[in-house]
Amino acid sequence: MGGRISEEIYKARSNMKVLILAGGIGKRMVPFKTEKYKIKFLGTEIIKQKVEELIKLGLNDIIVVCNPVIQENLKNILQSGVKIIIQPQPLGMANAILCAKEILKTDDVLIVNPNDIFEPSIYHSILTEYKNSSFDSYILAYKVQKYFPGGYLRTENSEIKEIIEKPQPGHEPSNLVNIVVHLHRDIRKLIEYLEKTSSEKDDVYEKSISQMMKDGFRFKAVEYTGFWGSIKYPWDILNIKNYYMERRVTYISNLATISEKSIIEGPVIIDDNVKIYENTKIKGPCYIGKNTIIGNNCLIRENTHIGSDCLVGNSTEIRNSYIGDNCKFHMNYVGDSILEGNILMGAGAITANFRFDEKNIFCRIGNEIVNTNLNKFGCIIGKDAKIGVNTSIMPGIKIGSNSIIGPGIVLTEDIGDNKKVFIKHNLSIR
Amino acid sequence: MGGRISEEIYKARSNMKVLILAGGIGKRMVPFKTEKYKIKFLGTEIIKQKVEELIKLGLNDIIVVCNPVIQENLKNILQSGVKIIIQPQPLGMANAILCAKEILKTDDVLIVNPNDIFEPSIYHSILTEYKNSSFDSYILAYKVQKYFPGGYLRTENSEIKEIIEKPQPGHEPSNLVNIVVHLHRDIRKLIEYLEKTSSEKDDVYEKSISQMMKDGFRFKAVEYTGFWGSIKYPWDILNIKNYYMERRVTYISNLATISEKSIIEGPVIIDDNVKIYENTKIKGPCYIGKNTIIGNNCLIRENTHIGSDCLVGNSTEIRNSYIGDNCKFHMNYVGDSILEGNILMGAGAITANFRFDEKNIFCRIGNEIVNTNLNKFGCIIGKDAKIGVNTSIMPGIKIGSNSIIGPGIVLTEDIGDNKKVFIKHNLSIR
Amino acid sequence: MGGRISEEIYKARSNMKVLILAGGIGKRMVPFKTEKYKIKFLGTEIIKQKVEELIKLGLNDIIVVCNPVIQENLKNILQSGVKIIIQPQPLGMANAILCAKEILKTDDVLIVNPNDIFEPSIYHSILTEYKNSSFDSYILAYKVQKYFPGGYLRTENSEIKEIIEKPQPGHEPSNLVNIVVHLHRDIRKLIEYLEKTSSEKDDVYEKSISQMMKDGFRFKAVEYTGFWGSIKYPWDILNIKNYYMERRVTYISNLATISEKSIIEGPVIIDDNVKIYENTKIKGPCYIGKNTIIGNNCLIRENTHIGSDCLVGNSTEIRNSYIGDNCKFHMNYVGDSILEGNILMGAGAITANFRFDEKNIFCRIGNEIVNTNLNKFGCIIGKDAKIGVNTSIMPGIKIGSNSIIGPGIVLTEDIGDNKKVFIKHNLSIR
Repeated sequence: MGGRISEEIYKARSNMKVLILAGGIGKRMVPFKTEKYKIKFLGTEIIKQKVEELIKLGLNDIIVVCNPVIQENLKNILQSGVKIIIQPQPLGMANAILCAKEILKTDDVLIVNPNDIFEPSIYHSILTEYKNSSFDSYILAYKVQKYFPGGYLRTENSEIKEIIEKPQPGHEPSNLVNIVVHLHRDIRKLIEYLEKTSSEKDDVYEKSISQMMKDGFRFKAVEYTGFWGSIKYPWDILNIKNYYMERRVTYISNLATISEKSIIEGPVIIDDNVKIYENTKIKGPCYIGKNTIIGNNCLIRENTHIGSDCLVGNSTEIRNSYIGDNCKFHMNYVGDSILEGNILMGAGAITANFRFDEKNIFCRIGNEIVNTNLNKFGCIIGKDAKIGVNTSIMPGIKIGSNSIIGPGIVLTEDIGDNKKVFIKHNLSIR
Repeated sequence: MGGRISEEIYKARSNMKVLILAGGIGKRMVPFKTEKYKIKFLGTEIIKQKVEELIKLGLNDIIVVCNPVIQENLKNILQSGVKIIIQPQPLGMANAILCAKEILKTDDVLIVNPNDIFEPSIYHSILTEYKNSSFDSYILAYKVQKYFPGGYLRTENSEIKEIIEKPQPGHEPSNLVNIVVHLHRDIRKLIEYLEKTSSEKDDVYEKSISQMMKDGFRFKAVEYTGFWGSIKYPWDILNIKNYYMERRVTYISNLATISEKSIIEGPVIIDDNVKIYENTKIKGPCYIGKNTIIGNNCLIRENTHIGSDCLVGNSTEIRNSYIGDNCKFHMNYVGDSILEGNILMGAGAITANFRFDEKNIFCRIGNEIVNTNLNKFGCIIGKDAKIGVNTSIMPGIKIGSNSIIGPGIVLTEDIGDNKKVFIKHNLSIR
Repeated sequence: MGGRISEEIYKARSNMKVLILAGGIGKRMVPFKTEKYKIKFLGTEIIKQKVEELIKLGLNDIIVVCNPVIQENLKNILQSGVKIIIQPQPLGMANAILCAKEILKTDDVLIVNPNDIFEPSIYHSILTEYKNSSFDSYILAYKVQKYFPGGYLRTENSEIKEIIEKPQPGHEPSNLVNIVVHLHRDIRKLIEYLEKTSSEKDDVYEKSISQMMKDGFRFKAVEYTGFWGSIKYPWDILNIKNYYMERRVTYISNLATISEKSIIEGPVIIDDNVKIYENTKIKGPCYIGKNTIIGNNCLIRENTHIGSDCLVGNSTEIRNSYIGDNCKFHMNYVGDSILEGNILMGAGAITANFRFDEKNIFCRIGNEIVNTNLNKFGCIIGKDAKIGVNTSIMPGIKIGSNSIIGPGIVLTEDIGDNKKVFIKHNLSIR
């Protein structure tokens, strides 16, 4: 997967900068409070993993552009040496690049969007092309198998002639989609175009490079067919956790305490200080983060990713779910669900994860009802939420952070942040 | 159990026909759609088992009278060589025999009702009597231990003088009840009587043989004390499944995959391709049909009969129940219940199977409230029904086929076919 | 713990009587019907254990004062030889002593309140003091670590000068609290004072000994720092069960049947004829009484005390609870709860045992809302109550004896004795 880079490429990139654009806000990620690129997989934030991958390849000169709120926190997360630049307002990609204008100087610059998840081998591919050819820019071109609502590349002999944003299905100019892993040989020229175009309202970056193409600058499409995941909606996390788990070989920490009466099957990653009690089965692929305790009689099933410091109490079953740090379970069934972190589920609480009519599950995102394209999907629960005993959460439901869903409820509607939901029974007492 | 029949009997029955009357409709079997004689036990329909038993005894000349709807399906079920005759309208037993009039010719005929379940040895008994005596007809006489609302035989030296339908308890002429395993030496004579009596509205067959008795034809009561089960109400299936399971010795298919960490105890029949996962206990007598999967941490208890292609998910307990084919469970408790087939129970759904006052459980059948005579009885669920997560079904409740019972419901009333039941919560959200 | 008593002490107490005052009524123990001193721990009533402890020390001359209703029952419980005296009306401690006036004669008398639980070593301490000094009376003085609303002792060189009832916190005269283990050398003198004071309405005993102190009688405080538990509220039972379990070493009866596939961990006491099935874990300290059956896949956790003849069905978890005799469970979670006895919990019924705000749990006792000072506390269920399937009982709730709580209820209010509670659903059926 591209760990080794030839000497020539190494030289070529000795003055290369990497610009990670972490400035955006994910409105469609409600009720998530965690920025997309700070979501942890296998115990590490996406952005930190990206930086690690880049450093491993010798790309040490890394600049992250982020919003002012996140700055401090990013400093704590990221490796020392990574420069952090503030983008005061969320004014898009071109604005983010211009915020880093001074520091970029005249270097060659690799621009990366941290919300795209892909194999590190693509850096190797793009750098090899950059070494062996003399295009002005290189753009990662993801070869899609079916329609994806993105920017399609019209190419001639792998030179990009135009980027067509969200064409109607069937009218795509190719099966190549623009992914923001862009290498520009002359960043000053790009900045010049960005500044010329900056009076435009939207898509300044896209319009700028389109204009560059028209003006004769040569852009190369670097094709890529490996894994690509983009976190647009919370349920995209489900797919991405699988990718991260599949990349790693089975690993069970020496510091984990695993009962001889438990069953570990298939590929698993079990981190330090994990405890697994008797008669529990872990059926991989699964990840279990540091200090997490899995009690008796549990079943942790295929593609489950559990963060650190969780307590999975007796008789809980979790299937194909993303569980953040510090969550507590007890006699639950959690299927195909996403729990941000610090969530408590009372005994007997259950996530329903399919419709009786077997149709796809829809989810309200803002004013839209969005098809998850999943016929097995549970719920999305924001940070610090608590779910009462014997409560049932219907498929596609979102629960806001810091909300309390009382006991014995069948939850069929989305609940915002900081809400308390209780049931009023009509009891006959005689 | 009567596998061997002496040479003499064999000769005697060389021209014997067997007439199986499968024409009736079981109104009291609501919500069952499956005809009684097509209910499967140990993987095979009752009627097919009966035919197998008869063929094993050399009684190869078998005629089944059935309604037009069922004809095609019966052909698929039954052994080739079995003749199928249509009874166009459900006009009763006499009419059914008359429908087969042409094919019966002048043979000796054994008439069998496929809804009565009994040991195959009774064929041997009745044929031995037939060989060793010269009565005109032989009627199976079940020696009851307590009152049963059926037709009682008034006998003199084992000759039947009269059949008295449903006498008041305490006024029975004997403890012998008429079971439709009737052997008639001269079927033409019976047909003659049936035709003479056919203007009567009801009970033409019973009236005909009563008249024959009066006219001097001699009927012998062949006593029987073994197992007899009659499927009148759905809960009769519970008793009958036990009979079928008890008849068979323990058998575990070589093609079954059974975890070494599961526990198999007592007599069991585990069919081909069954999978049983870790920490699950099967406590026989139990039957588990082909391709059925029993997940982790399950408890399948005494007298449970599970059909083929079922998925019994993690942490499910089933006790003394009849489960048809293709049912799905997950973290359920199913006790003393009857599930026709293709039924789905969501996680945490529970069948309550006794009353707090420990009294017998009653069941509404048509306009009647019928005592099941069981103080442990769960529910009856028709084909293709779906039950939501955390729903509780009260004892004696019937759920119609293709109905959906939503999540979190305490179901205290019968639900018809094709219904959707949902709960409307009164929630306080603040 | 004081099994051996020196020869001198033995002589000293050869004419010593023990007076156990079992006359009180525990209004704060609602919904308990069992008198406090008759609550069983490790299979034996408190009062019987006390008598056993006294007899073991050679204090054979024991008198129990009780109310008329309880008399017969106490006779059955207590060792023969124990004298039982009736207190016709519940008129307090002084009245109880006066009821026993004739039988007490002129002996030295040790007065004991059976609702106080303490280590038997205190008898040894008080008798040693009595032997080695010449005070008129000896009073057990419990050294409290923090404020307790009781009678505080003002002492000078361990001589008690005054008893101050419930001083304001911070105004205690010492950290010594009066416990009713009182040894009086001259019972006639005490009786004289009681009779003089008997026109007072309340606290006649306390006022009498206060007067005696004023009049120059010398009372010695015998300090005690071991375990002391007083059953005032039902939840006090939780603490006391721990004391009883901790005193005993691990013991598993030869008559118990314990599956090799079960797990027994930590200190346990498992009595005769207990059955423990496969895949069940008992994590001590735990006590399991005679004839109790623990089914498959159960988890019986820390500090659980289960009485005799219980049936703990499949997949039940019990934690830090007091379960009386003859209770039935099935797929339940019972945490930090007190079940008096003969209680049935339907499958899926759950006791919630903490508040989402992690605050202490309060309990209504009469007209008061009392702080249990526990942030983990479940419910209190009186004798003969029944709980329906999938019902959730909120923390701090009391359910009266012989009451029925139907299925699927979230119980948020106390229920009195002999009530029936059912839920009325608002269902949509179409």
